Amino acid sequence: MDLRTPYLVFVGDAKDALAAKTGQGVVDWRGEAVVGQLRLPRCRADLGVADMTIRQAVEAGAKTFLIGVVNPGGVLPTRWQGVIVEALEAGLDIASGLHESLEGIPAIVEAARRSDRRLIEARRPAEPYPVATGRKRTGKRLLTVGTDCSVGKKYAALAIERELIARNIAADFRATGQTGILIAGSGIPIDAVVADFAAGAAETLSPDNDPDHWDVVEGQGSLFHPSFAGVSLALLHGTQPDAFVVCHEPTRTTMRNVDAPIASIEAVVEQTIALGRLTNPAVRCVGIALNTSDLDAERANQTVEQAQCQFGVPACDPVRHGVEVIVDEMLS
Amino acid sequence: MDLRTPYLVFVGDAKDALAAKTGQGVVDWRGEAVVGQLRLPRCRADLGVADMTIRQAVEAGAKTFLIGVVNPGGVLPTRWQGVIVEALEAGLDIASGLHESLEGIPAIVEAARRSDRRLIEARRPAEPYPVATGRKRTGKRLLTVGTDCSVGKKYAALAIERELIARNIAADFRATGQTGILIAGSGIPIDAVVADFAAGAAETLSPDNDPDHWDVVEGQGSLFHPSFAGVSLALLHGTQPDAFVVCHEPTRTTMRNVDAPIASIEAVVEQTIALGRLTNPAVRCVGIALNTSDLDAERANQTVEQAQCQFGVPACDPVRHGVEVIVDEMLS
Repeated sequence: MDLRTPYLVFVGDAKDALAAKTGQGVVDWRGEAVVGQLRLPRCRADLGVADMTIRQAVEAGAKTFLIGVVNPGGVLPTRWQGVIVEALEAGLDIASGLHESLEGIPAIVEAARRSDRRLIEARRPAEPYPVATGRKRTGKRLLTVGTDCSVGKKYAALAIERELIARNIAADFRATGQTGILIAGSGIPIDAVVADFAAGAAETLSPDNDPDHWDVVEGQGSLFHPSFAGVSLALLHGTQPDAFVVCHEPTRTTMRNVDAPIASIEAVVEQTIALGRLTNPAVRCVGIALNTSDLDAERANQTVEQAQCQFGVPACDPVRHGVEVIVDEMLS
Repeated sequence: MDLRTPYLVFVGDAKDALAAKTGQGVVDWRGEAVVGQLRLPRCRADLGVADMTIRQAVEAGAKTFLIGVVNPGGVLPTRWQGVIVEALEAGLDIASGLHESLEGIPAIVEAARRSDRRLIEARRPAEPYPVATGRKRTGKRLLTVGTDCSVGKKYAALAIERELIARNIAADFRATGQTGILIAGSGIPIDAVVADFAAGAAETLSPDNDPDHWDVVEGQGSLFHPSFAGVSLALLHGTQPDAFVVCHEPTRTTMRNVDAPIASIEAVVEQTIALGRLTNPAVRCVGIALNTSDLDAERANQTVEQAQCQFGVPACDPVRHGVEVIVDEMLS
């Protein structure tokens, strides 16, 4: 996948800020690649960038119309088809992370062909991937892992990439989910790969590299999530990380969407080392990333200090505090 | 998938017995569903059943032409197309476990349509499967796990199903790979399911059942195989087994197709319990199944006794000794 920048981010008629989280992620982490947002009447989200029509965006240099709004089921509502066709006719590619395929909508396919523009689907893997070999690769890798889904693994990885680059250390964020892919402009939607090839896809994602280069790989799910642990393990084995960061949301008590308690940070550290050793005997925990967005500053700082004491590795909220302490540890 | 029996097993021009292992598995475990074999000139395998032409097989009641020969890459050689078309025209369905799809070969698709017969692909999952919930189901489940791929997990599971049924205990073998599916006539090719849904497919495969009913689930890969551990974990979590049997080939020293030592039985027992607890806290090891086909009788018996002493659970070679001791333990 190769997204042309900059983007016009389509927020559609998002009913709240959460529905626009894909667009928000792109604005937060690739703001320099965004010329503006296009909102339909009744949209209740605002990414905090300039509102533009398609024509204004094209004049401002936009190359890709990025669908930055999600909805339950990942479907593409019929009412969006007109504006997507208009974007194609104005010369923009379309990028989508929805489950529903753009290729399945004749009006959109026809408009893309007529205007010779591309339909880019972040959630469709570019098969075939090889079966994983387990062979040790050159270069260094960090993986963010979690006590649950949706605890900040993507944001932690992006923050670490940014901090490494600020220190003039060669690094690449490696996206494994649709929002990460739309942020980075490349990646592999690991959970959409056929199970037999998931570890192989993870190997493909972080290939041999210079000895000092870091791949910072976005984790998925949790080794303790009964729905997705297999995906998490394939990603762990295929990434063969030298270092990992445990991501956790301290106010959460149960796993998302299943009737199970959230895993403890301690259990995730132990299990990640026990299983990660198979493809990298030197794997180690270099930090705890806490998503404290539901806590006030004082409580957030207490939580961070407590984790630091308990686990003997640096802890922080990547958004609130930055990840300097984690990067110090991973480079030590 | 619903295979009509009996089968005419196609052995093609198999270059040796190993190339005919799918057909051999069907003859060994569902011999009552086999009317005969069809071998092409230069075939070097023999399943030990009557040789028949397509016409003779139809007269003997055959309903499905089962491709019982495998080859590297799982492709369907052009030279087989004629006989497959002939089988369709004679009124047989076609069942295949090859990677290459029958649906991709126009002459075969056309013949199937003309004769109103079905093309059944054991390696193509019937998506969509749900995301796994981790919810505890009624009934009992046993999973065969391994120190590597191809160590006898399918044979052990089939032997346990047979022994349970001989004792008048309700049981179903649940196939998870193409050969198992062709033997059982149903199942889910778990390694071909999209990673996010692999655990959900395993839940679908062994649904709620009577309290005394056993599902005997065919394992895949190994938690210690760097290529496939994610598949093995999804299957373990989705199956939520009450009991597991560790399968091992005592003469093997390295994992198949990767540069890694074979896992120890001890490590597999510990890790299966550690990870299996997530969806079934009562999971326990009820036996060791040793594939001693490369050992003489004396050495085989020594190996079995040694395993029994070391691990404190019954051990046996399912083919050489039967699985009575394992079934005694699982029912205790």
